[in-house]
Amino acid sequence: MSSFGTIFRVTTYGESHCRSVGCIVDGVPPNMSLTEDDIQPQLSRRRPGQSKLTTPRNEKDRVEIQSGTEFGKTLGTPIAMVVRNEDQRPKDYTEMDVFPRPSHADFTYLSKYGVKASSGGGRSSARETIGRVAAGAIAEKFLKQVNDVEIVAFVSGVGECQIDRSVQNPEFMELLSTITREKVDQSGPIRCPILEKADEMTRLVVDCKERNDSVGGIVTCVIRNVPIGLGEPAFDKLEAMLAHAMLSIPATKGFEIGSGFEGTKMRGSEHNDPFVKKGGRLGTATNNSGGIQGGITNGENIYFSVAFKPPATISQEQQTASYEGDDGVLKSRGRHDPNVVPRAIPIVEAMAALVLADSYLIQKSRESTFGSVY
Amino acid sequence: MSSFGTIFRVTTYGESHCRSVGCIVDGVPPNMSLTEDDIQPQLSRRRPGQSKLTTPRNEKDRVEIQSGTEFGKTLGTPIAMVVRNEDQRPKDYTEMDVFPRPSHADFTYLSKYGVKASSGGGRSSARETIGRVAAGAIAEKFLKQVNDVEIVAFVSGVGECQIDRSVQNPEFMELLSTITREKVDQSGPIRCPILEKADEMTRLVVDCKERNDSVGGIVTCVIRNVPIGLGEPAFDKLEAMLAHAMLSIPATKGFEIGSGFEGTKMRGSEHNDPFVKKGGRLGTATNNSGGIQGGITNGENIYFSVAFKPPATISQEQQTASYEGDDGVLKSRGRHDPNVVPRAIPIVEAMAALVLADSYLIQKSRESTFGSVY
Amino acid sequence: MSSFGTIFRVTTYGESHCRSVGCIVDGVPPNMSLTEDDIQPQLSRRRPGQSKLTTPRNEKDRVEIQSGTEFGKTLGTPIAMVVRNEDQRPKDYTEMDVFPRPSHADFTYLSKYGVKASSGGGRSSARETIGRVAAGAIAEKFLKQVNDVEIVAFVSGVGECQIDRSVQNPEFMELLSTITREKVDQSGPIRCPILEKADEMTRLVVDCKERNDSVGGIVTCVIRNVPIGLGEPAFDKLEAMLAHAMLSIPATKGFEIGSGFEGTKMRGSEHNDPFVKKGGRLGTATNNSGGIQGGITNGENIYFSVAFKPPATISQEQQTASYEGDDGVLKSRGRHDPNVVPRAIPIVEAMAALVLADSYLIQKSRESTFGSVY
Amino acid sequence: MSSFGTIFRVTTYGESHCRSVGCIVDGVPPNMSLTEDDIQPQLSRRRPGQSKLTTPRNEKDRVEIQSGTEFGKTLGTPIAMVVRNEDQRPKDYTEMDVFPRPSHADFTYLSKYGVKASSGGGRSSARETIGRVAAGAIAEKFLKQVNDVEIVAFVSGVGECQIDRSVQNPEFMELLSTITREKVDQSGPIRCPILEKADEMTRLVVDCKERNDSVGGIVTCVIRNVPIGLGEPAFDKLEAMLAHAMLSIPATKGFEIGSGFEGTKMRGSEHNDPFVKKGGRLGTATNNSGGIQGGITNGENIYFSVAFKPPATISQEQQTASYEGDDGVLKSRGRHDPNVVPRAIPIVEAMAALVLADSYLIQKSRESTFGSVY
Repeated sequence: MSSFGTIFRVTTYGESHCRSVGCIVDGVPPNMSLTEDDIQPQLSRRRPGQSKLTTPRNEKDRVEIQSGTEFGKTLGTPIAMVVRNEDQRPKDYTEMDVFPRPSHADFTYLSKYGVKASSGGGRSSARETIGRVAAGAIAEKFLKQVNDVEIVAFVSGVGECQIDRSVQNPEFMELLSTITREKVDQSGPIRCPILEKADEMTRLVVDCKERNDSVGGIVTCVIRNVPIGLGEPAFDKLEAMLAHAMLSIPATKGFEIGSGFEGTKMRGSEHNDPFVKKGGRLGTATNNSGGIQGGITNGENIYFSVAFKPPATISQEQQTASYEGDDGVLKSRGRHDPNVVPRAIPIVEAMAALVLADSYLIQKSRESTFGSVY
Repeated sequence: MSSFGTIFRVTTYGESHCRSVGCIVDGVPPNMSLTEDDIQPQLSRRRPGQSKLTTPRNEKDRVEIQSGTEFGKTLGTPIAMVVRNEDQRPKDYTEMDVFPRPSHADFTYLSKYGVKASSGGGRSSARETIGRVAAGAIAEKFLKQVNDVEIVAFVSGVGECQIDRSVQNPEFMELLSTITREKVDQSGPIRCPILEKADEMTRLVVDCKERNDSVGGIVTCVIRNVPIGLGEPAFDKLEAMLAHAMLSIPATKGFEIGSGFEGTKMRGSEHNDPFVKKGGRLGTATNNSGGIQGGITNGENIYFSVAFKPPATISQEQQTASYEGDDGVLKSRGRHDPNVVPRAIPIVEAMAALVLADSYLIQKSRESTFGSVY
Repeated sequence: MSSFGTIFRVTTYGESHCRSVGCIVDGVPPNMSLTEDDIQPQLSRRRPGQSKLTTPRNEKDRVEIQSGTEFGKTLGTPIAMVVRNEDQRPKDYTEMDVFPRPSHADFTYLSKYGVKASSGGGRSSARETIGRVAAGAIAEKFLKQVNDVEIVAFVSGVGECQIDRSVQNPEFMELLSTITREKVDQSGPIRCPILEKADEMTRLVVDCKERNDSVGGIVTCVIRNVPIGLGEPAFDKLEAMLAHAMLSIPATKGFEIGSGFEGTKMRGSEHNDPFVKKGGRLGTATNNSGGIQGGITNGENIYFSVAFKPPATISQEQQTASYEGDDGVLKSRGRHDPNVVPRAIPIVEAMAALVLADSYLIQKSRESTFGSVY
Repeated sequence: MSSFGTIFRVTTYGESHCRSVGCIVDGVPPNMSLTEDDIQPQLSRRRPGQSKLTTPRNEKDRVEIQSGTEFGKTLGTPIAMVVRNEDQRPKDYTEMDVFPRPSHADFTYLSKYGVKASSGGGRSSARETIGRVAAGAIAEKFLKQVNDVEIVAFVSGVGECQIDRSVQNPEFMELLSTITREKVDQSGPIRCPILEKADEMTRLVVDCKERNDSVGGIVTCVIRNVPIGLGEPAFDKLEAMLAHAMLSIPATKGFEIGSGFEGTKMRGSEHNDPFVKKGGRLGTATNNSGGIQGGITNGENIYFSVAFKPPATISQEQQTASYEGDDGVLKSRGRHDPNVVPRAIPIVEAMAALVLADSYLIQKSRESTFGSVY
């Protein structure tokens, strides 16, 4: 469905060519300062057609808060947000494609609903994520205020060029502790903070573009200053909610947290995170767990990576079959983004924030009653 | 929380040392034949201490249906199932450990709840998964009846010994099309159907056991005969629900579907799945998508892999800190399972079945109204 | 929260003085013809300031569909609807009232959220019901198509002037079988189809208006052509969902279905509804049950009544206390609606339609699997 | 479905003739003392066949906690509770009735599910409420601890013998402020604390019994020491949740809160509750609102009444039709309870407690973040 979260809950709407896209965010705590200026920056980071990150003004994808705030403060009531679609004209049915685009959602939407939007991706378009990013910006602001939570995502892989994301690589673990959103954006449009990798990734994307092809990539995200005790066993473990959130982003194919898939090769004696005293609290010397044990946050950094497949839209002819099952060639149309991971950064951050804000509120209801030891 | 699913919904209960563990399964369609004999086999595959798979009788972990069936048929009402715990005696508080076990949930449960079960894993114990496996067996039976759905999981990695799970490996793709649960179990206790790998994995586990250590592993699962049209955009894409389900299993660290993390290295031109006519329906020539496009099943096989970390309980001394923050050494106690992936097989299958059964029922409500084109 | 329903689910937003009010309706079946023309009529029936029911054009409260339809057909994706607020200027805090209005939500909102909208009712304003009425119009259209379901509400009481709503009054039971929305509106602005009662009610409202007072009333609603088998035991019995829906409408104080409170005086031998053959199906000779038995619809008419308290806003001075607890007199401001039940009619109809559409879809998912006997 | 609540959530299971009935209660706050002794008293008040209220021991309907507690304290994990059914033998299909019992759920269950339990009420049996009462007892204990909340229900009507429940009756309002559970039980088996009415009600029930007939009744419930700020606008107003809860109890036909249906006859000037200073907080001089304004508790007593129809099972011959539609006479079988409202008392109290506990926890999550003015 189109809702996510239990107490802090977002519901999104919108297709690629309807009047507007947006969302309703229910359960936002009251009395928090909030205006469009808190939301627009992440929307602008998500926006298509960012020629340079230093573009002084973004006129497109302007968010407009409809409800739930007054005099710049949240009221505790639902916050509706609307972003107008520029191209609202659906194509005529007579132009409707005879070919479902390979690895797109054309065929499955038509199969599921018996009808599909005539133009672009319809509901499967990445424009649906605008509502998520807007809602995530509110969640982020809330988390910042209650625990100075920091959420930073960056590109850790494009095609065969990948950062060594091993928990046994001290430079990677150090990066997770120090990376900021500013550093990510300063690294250039590719949003990979390791500059030599950024250059290689950029070349790889340019090469794909020239070949009318596309390439996949990986986004890594770290969350710092995480309150202890978030996440609900058994089914709503925090990593399960994060996995749900991330795999709900279009074009994702994988999620790993902490030591991830590589960690399966480790021995328990090296993988276990010994406890140590850290300031006033109990922490762990290593963090192979990725900040979550038994589905519950332990106060260490949460970090995870998300795999994105190469975009399905490519400017090449593709041998395929029509809806009727007849073989044929789908012609290329225009030029397309050869890689989406840089623009996925604010979406990953938004979904992470939504998971955390909801978990935080649920845990607070529990703590309010009999207290916890922390 | 302890519930999973919208229409077909399981709620589990139980700790490692309470009277019983079990579940309530709500929304099971009526008029389906069902007895304990449909459920016990998967529970027995999950059971600890399986010396041989050919053991003629399992006396332990016997499930007892409490409600929801009569004369061997489901009534459409909630099905409660109970499995008695053998060791129901909690330890006395005076014996309570001074050390939270590294990479266990001792510390996080205590932080979250301000109290924790005195013995074993409490709610974080793998015994919680008994309720899931029992519920999953019902879901599986339902799916088998309505569409002959087949769900088969197997071990694809133990430590550094891993099957080549690449979508570009034709042998792996062939394995996914042909593997049966019988073949998996015939491969021996390690449950890896590629026999030379099974031998190597077994040696690796034995070696870990001798060193009082543990090792992680990977479970791969394939779902065949999947109805087209399952999965709910935007947040409840089928892969998102599967990721949620899998990462809610204890000790999991990663999930990938279709081409997964390796697929990020591919180009769109090789990753896209061209359409072809398959019997009466439109199918795809390749299946890098893993049977899901735009969050919705396309009728091809769904396949995914789940990463399990090395078990945290090891029979070695571990340098760590007490709850009070004092450094110390946690002594080893007894001998423990050095690897859990073979026993995770029925749990992965159960969670997959729960996701599919729920998605199926939701889609059926939609199809019932105006029909779909397929 | 601001969402209602499981499969067919509406989420509303909006305060009295924000930019707009509206909703997102998720789970609307695809391929259904739908435009603003299907929604506007009920919004216009709900609209304040209807001088005559025959007003040729209503310029106010115009709904605009944002998403989820194309070429006048639903896509199966969320339908967002927006109605602009005319007066969007919140009052300045310096004007903020020192008195919470008696029997309004001023005090409780401030207590709950620590903040409240400065003007009018904020979220507790009846403008929130615009989203419900818009969503309900879609549900109604759906129900009409799948089973020719008819939902008609009318005013059955204003102050001490009440229709005899007893199940033992054959004229009332006949009215339930024959009343149409057209007849209700033709009865005049009071919307009571028994004309002598309508006259008395009208005089009573006029009298209240002249005395700067207000008066309560009762709305009765009948649903005909109800599919058999809707409603989910145990907690989501159909009458429980209807009661939930109705008591969520502002200013409601009671709900009764079938024989209701008066029926508690009856004997079982006269209250039981004997079965009789009706056309091709089994029906009941009487309908004291109100069309629901054991929480499940039996195919007979559903009918229920909803009590509305006298509006809290009156043009009289009221002795009360300030937020600070100081005694004082709240002065009257302007003139206000002395009675709201006629305008509540489309809201009651909308909430009834939302309950039924959701129940219908849930039941269809069940029926799709193994069939039901009907 | 069989679940109720968001954070504090109960899921029940069980038919009249299966192995056991019971529930899982999820979200119970940790560290609360809890044993079967906290739960059994309300189950015993609900139990059938209570000859006298002073019966020293009840051997039947013994509850057994399965999980979620240790050493008499809650762990924060799900609490499963089981009550064994004494008669677990379903009747053979060959004995299956040819007649659906009038105003029972036989016909609707069969229509909905295509199958029904062969014996007794199956899932529609009042035995399903055992799980509710057990869960409610936990909710009550929690509410008692956090705010000394008191919930007391009593019989206010049997047939034509009814207490004057008008808000304009000072004796009734006084009764609401002073009634205790002990006084209710001391009033005799009828559980009406106004003794002259109790006598009349008792005679009425005895008379019905002698005539092989049954009679309906009304239960009134008051909740005192209610925290301010509970209830979630718009759809989950506290009165909406209470109405949902109450109408989910078998045999209920109506719900009214505060001034209720009679209040519709009042004028706003007399119905509005003026504010006054009460101790340290703002209260209201009258309480026609029933403790809720705008869907949110204001700290005054909540009180509401629930209508129960006459039990459908009567020891008389009834003219009706068979499942096949043939006219016939349903013979009487045995003797049955002519009135159920005294036994409904603990069920009403349980459902009220479940609504309040859940609302409390949701509001606490909000208050924890930015505070509320109270």
